[in-house]
Amino acid sequence: MRLLLALCLCLCSAAAQAREFAIDHLEPASWWVGMKHHRVELMVHGQGIASLAPRVGHPGVVVSDVQKLANPNYLFVTLDIAADAAPGTFDIELLQGDRVAARRPFLLQAREAGSAARKGFDPADAIYLITPDRFVNGDPGNDSVPGMREAADRKDPNGRHGGDLAGIAAHMDYVAGMGFTQLWPTPLLENNQPRFSYHGYAITDLYRIDPRFGSNEDYRALSARARGLGVGLLMDVVLNHIGSSHWWMQDLPTADWINHGGTFSPTNHLRSTVQDPHAAPQDHAAFVEGWFSPGMPDLNQRNPHLATYLIQNSLWWIEYAGLSGIREDTFGYADSQFLSAWGKAILDEYPGFSMVGEEWSGSPATVAHWQRGKANADGHVPWMPSMMDFPLHIALREAFKEAKEGDVGFTGLYEMLGNDYLYPEAASLVVFAENHDTTRLLANVDGDVGLFKMAMAYLATVRGTPQFFYGSEVLMQGPRERDDGRIRADMPGGWRGDAKNAFTGTGLSASELDAQDYLRRLLQWRKGTPVVQHGKLRHYGPEDGVYVYFRHDGKDTVMVALNRNATARTLLPARFAEYLDGATGSDVMTGTAVSFERPLSLPGKSATIMQVRRGPGTR
Amino acid sequence: MRLLLALCLCLCSAAAQAREFAIDHLEPASWWVGMKHHRVELMVHGQGIASLAPRVGHPGVVVSDVQKLANPNYLFVTLDIAADAAPGTFDIELLQGDRVAARRPFLLQAREAGSAARKGFDPADAIYLITPDRFVNGDPGNDSVPGMREAADRKDPNGRHGGDLAGIAAHMDYVAGMGFTQLWPTPLLENNQPRFSYHGYAITDLYRIDPRFGSNEDYRALSARARGLGVGLLMDVVLNHIGSSHWWMQDLPTADWINHGGTFSPTNHLRSTVQDPHAAPQDHAAFVEGWFSPGMPDLNQRNPHLATYLIQNSLWWIEYAGLSGIREDTFGYADSQFLSAWGKAILDEYPGFSMVGEEWSGSPATVAHWQRGKANADGHVPWMPSMMDFPLHIALREAFKEAKEGDVGFTGLYEMLGNDYLYPEAASLVVFAENHDTTRLLANVDGDVGLFKMAMAYLATVRGTPQFFYGSEVLMQGPRERDDGRIRADMPGGWRGDAKNAFTGTGLSASELDAQDYLRRLLQWRKGTPVVQHGKLRHYGPEDGVYVYFRHDGKDTVMVALNRNATARTLLPARFAEYLDGATGSDVMTGTAVSFERPLSLPGKSATIMQVRRGPGTR
Repeated sequence: MRLLLALCLCLCSAAAQAREFAIDHLEPASWWVGMKHHRVELMVHGQGIASLAPRVGHPGVVVSDVQKLANPNYLFVTLDIAADAAPGTFDIELLQGDRVAARRPFLLQAREAGSAARKGFDPADAIYLITPDRFVNGDPGNDSVPGMREAADRKDPNGRHGGDLAGIAAHMDYVAGMGFTQLWPTPLLENNQPRFSYHGYAITDLYRIDPRFGSNEDYRALSARARGLGVGLLMDVVLNHIGSSHWWMQDLPTADWINHGGTFSPTNHLRSTVQDPHAAPQDHAAFVEGWFSPGMPDLNQRNPHLATYLIQNSLWWIEYAGLSGIREDTFGYADSQFLSAWGKAILDEYPGFSMVGEEWSGSPATVAHWQRGKANADGHVPWMPSMMDFPLHIALREAFKEAKEGDVGFTGLYEMLGNDYLYPEAASLVVFAENHDTTRLLANVDGDVGLFKMAMAYLATVRGTPQFFYGSEVLMQGPRERDDGRIRADMPGGWRGDAKNAFTGTGLSASELDAQDYLRRLLQWRKGTPVVQHGKLRHYGPEDGVYVYFRHDGKDTVMVALNRNATARTLLPARFAEYLDGATGSDVMTGTAVSFERPLSLPGKSATIMQVRRGPGTR
Repeated sequence: MRLLLALCLCLCSAAAQAREFAIDHLEPASWWVGMKHHRVELMVHGQGIASLAPRVGHPGVVVSDVQKLANPNYLFVTLDIAADAAPGTFDIELLQGDRVAARRPFLLQAREAGSAARKGFDPADAIYLITPDRFVNGDPGNDSVPGMREAADRKDPNGRHGGDLAGIAAHMDYVAGMGFTQLWPTPLLENNQPRFSYHGYAITDLYRIDPRFGSNEDYRALSARARGLGVGLLMDVVLNHIGSSHWWMQDLPTADWINHGGTFSPTNHLRSTVQDPHAAPQDHAAFVEGWFSPGMPDLNQRNPHLATYLIQNSLWWIEYAGLSGIREDTFGYADSQFLSAWGKAILDEYPGFSMVGEEWSGSPATVAHWQRGKANADGHVPWMPSMMDFPLHIALREAFKEAKEGDVGFTGLYEMLGNDYLYPEAASLVVFAENHDTTRLLANVDGDVGLFKMAMAYLATVRGTPQFFYGSEVLMQGPRERDDGRIRADMPGGWRGDAKNAFTGTGLSASELDAQDYLRRLLQWRKGTPVVQHGKLRHYGPEDGVYVYFRHDGKDTVMVALNRNATARTLLPARFAEYLDGATGSDVMTGTAVSFERPLSLPGKSATIMQVRRGPGTR
């Protein structure tokens, strides 16, 4: 027996000596000269390659570190790229003794001018959220792609419908024309999953655009085209998990790469454990380490190689595609310390960049925990410039419903905004009424277009950066209860033969055209009105279903009056004397003059937005 | 005409010269030697007395300041009382020239030993809240009193029923025997209002116990009797408003004594304006300065004489009656800076004293704003050692309801406790399931005694000082909707001829006796178990309607398992290995041994409280 084993080991060893090596994965396969992050840790993967020694032969580039793990198929090779290294392609060579056993090209690029100084989105912007698979099918030729498990099936609400980068690129003029200045497509990276691959949140290759959407180059071209139209591109980054078909899952780099050792164990969703001083550590661990679903293995960002991988991946896409911002998915479900390190690394590289995190909580204290500048009781130092304002989202969904006897009406919304002192910078939050994970706003207001438009006006005039959801501008309503595949329905006109076309207006009803026109005019006005972007907010306690607030910056003043009642209300200007005494106004949406010397009449279910020209007597 | 006027002035002047002066009010009419607050500002009121000059002739007491206001009927006279002044009675004399035109005795007392060092309530205590008019009618002779506008009418749910101090005093043994260690009667001061005088929140004399309850001396005697039984007395202090029949309202000391110039203008109840950075100042003013009702004129504590009056009034009652704490009504509706000054003055005088404020908000950030030690964004420096935990109250009312498909169950309660990081000292909050302003807990749980007892067990074992509401221990249920007069129903046995008697047990059903016995045993056990008073809390995310938490202090450990399901559940001890590995236990309420080596069975709708004796292997 012992002899047999020895023989076997010997044969195996001989086989290893003789066999060819190959680098199956090299990530990233390119970098840039002149990044602050100039020490790049490459993940090199290939059968048995850990026995080999890396070498590069490019002036200004040295291998500064090599890490081998228990798994013999991985090498982590750190390249140190000098600030004066020459751009160009060179090989990463893996040596067996003196022999080059495997090689793979690596591209060193020059940065675009001004790359580090790029400006992220801010409250001057308006964000358009789209589900790329459901927006426009610009290239039916890539609806199904060999090697990608799921083919298109437009009849299946949860299947792929064929939307792609070509479609988005061809309709960027529509996006820009509507007044949106930032585009947030849900994830576009490869999701080679057998089902539900259209939504994009089960990424199987972190360096590759899903070929059913297009190529990396298409993505970069879209970004450039959008930028040319004054629209920034946001990437939807998923740090918490990957798709179960990611190649890592066939050969995990380390035993701790995936939480729970690579086996499904669900998260408890108990986000309160993050700050709860009484929480059991294992409940917090179950929150952070638990998986969303069996199809989404949960990444353990405490592994330093994985942490570096994810940070570099984000930097890579920002630099590669010229991004103007990141929307980070399921924030808080990832390791807190990693989230800080990730945020800091991005802001170190791009000090003016913006990231917005998704913390789906109704508690402002829970959301505020993650915003840069927050002094947290638990000592956590956050780095996110922005967070999605879920608390306000939840409050506004209540406030813009049909008025009922005894409901809190606007008061809940008013009181929620009163919690802004909990944030280090509430003005930088992203405000929204709907996204790809909620029912559509129009369903929430039972199809009432008046209430819908009032909510649009609120988003466009309240503090923060407003975010809108594709299709709602033409009154896409969707189901009343959450049903993701149906809520993320196809944009009318995005598919050949569509009878209705949101882009051209063909086939739209008068009401749909009116809603679209309303939002377009609202956003175009907002674009040219700095006071609603950056001005201070002053609001007044809602009375009788009427909510009034002002944006003001010492120079300009805008007054907004929301009336959620079905019938008209009279508003007495005297209550707002500090803004209206001696002032004259004009209705932003109609252009008609407004007098503040007599009561204002507010139509039922409407927003009245007024530019206020202050008189000499006003403070 | 001119001549007539001159004549008239002359006659009037002559009349003033000739007429008698009288001091109608002198408040306070006594003080103590050796208080830190030794400069006492006396409010002296009487027709025309502002023209007189005060004098005292008592060694160690000097008049250090005299303030006259526009109203000629008030003098504010500051006595400076030396630390070595001799106790005794002396006159406050008002001189017209050399003539003593009016006088009134003032009592200088010696302090009780240890008065300054008294200890207020803390989490070792259990508070019993009673509505004195509805507890026990010990002296039917004072049910109606000449000069008091409202007579007793037990048939009127909103009328006076005759409960009094004599009744409370006679049943202090019951209170103490139940395990309560603090008694909180709703206000006992004079409410000489035409209607609703029973509730006590419309005070018409801040230095006088309502004669329908008894005398000041009776109040002091009750406090002494309670203290002898190990029960502290809390005063329900109302700083925000008075009753409309208060004598001030006939002759306001200053034009700004009452907010809105003494005319009713309702508060907007917008408590968010206190911290809201966007709130209109006039909305905040309307919150603080608005009245609760026309019967409750709202005090303007920014008036320095009123502020001093209110501070001295609280100090006076603490010292006079030997109080162990204060419950402050409608906290936040009063002026913030005054609230701080008031709290600081009390704690300067009695560093170990406790006050708990009522901020009826579901937001922990709103409540935390007032607790001593909170670093507030708006710079407000609070001084309250404790606040009523309304956020937890609201969450527990939801959590202890009948389990329904899709409800959040215990999760809302668990998550609310997770907000404790917002408080400087969450352990000092007062926790409660019901009070005189809410429906009774039993109504909230649809009469289910199992859920009721479970909530009692929760209050007795969670962090904080638990507060209970009279009568609930014998399953008083009251109406389902708020209806104050009926919720504050008469305690059975408090009136002669009552068929049912909660104090003796006569006529109570088996279920009522059992509930009473359950709470009694719970509180008596709690009294002797420091770990549930001061131990740390560790809780575990609720699963399947079962919520488990521990109190531990390194020495002792108590485990609590709540099962809100109608049917039994099995609990696996392994999840709690850090406490249960190698430990043995006993059920606190039954005394039976509990093994942690096998699954525990938790009966439906029950709390299982276990003393855990930890083994050598446990951490």
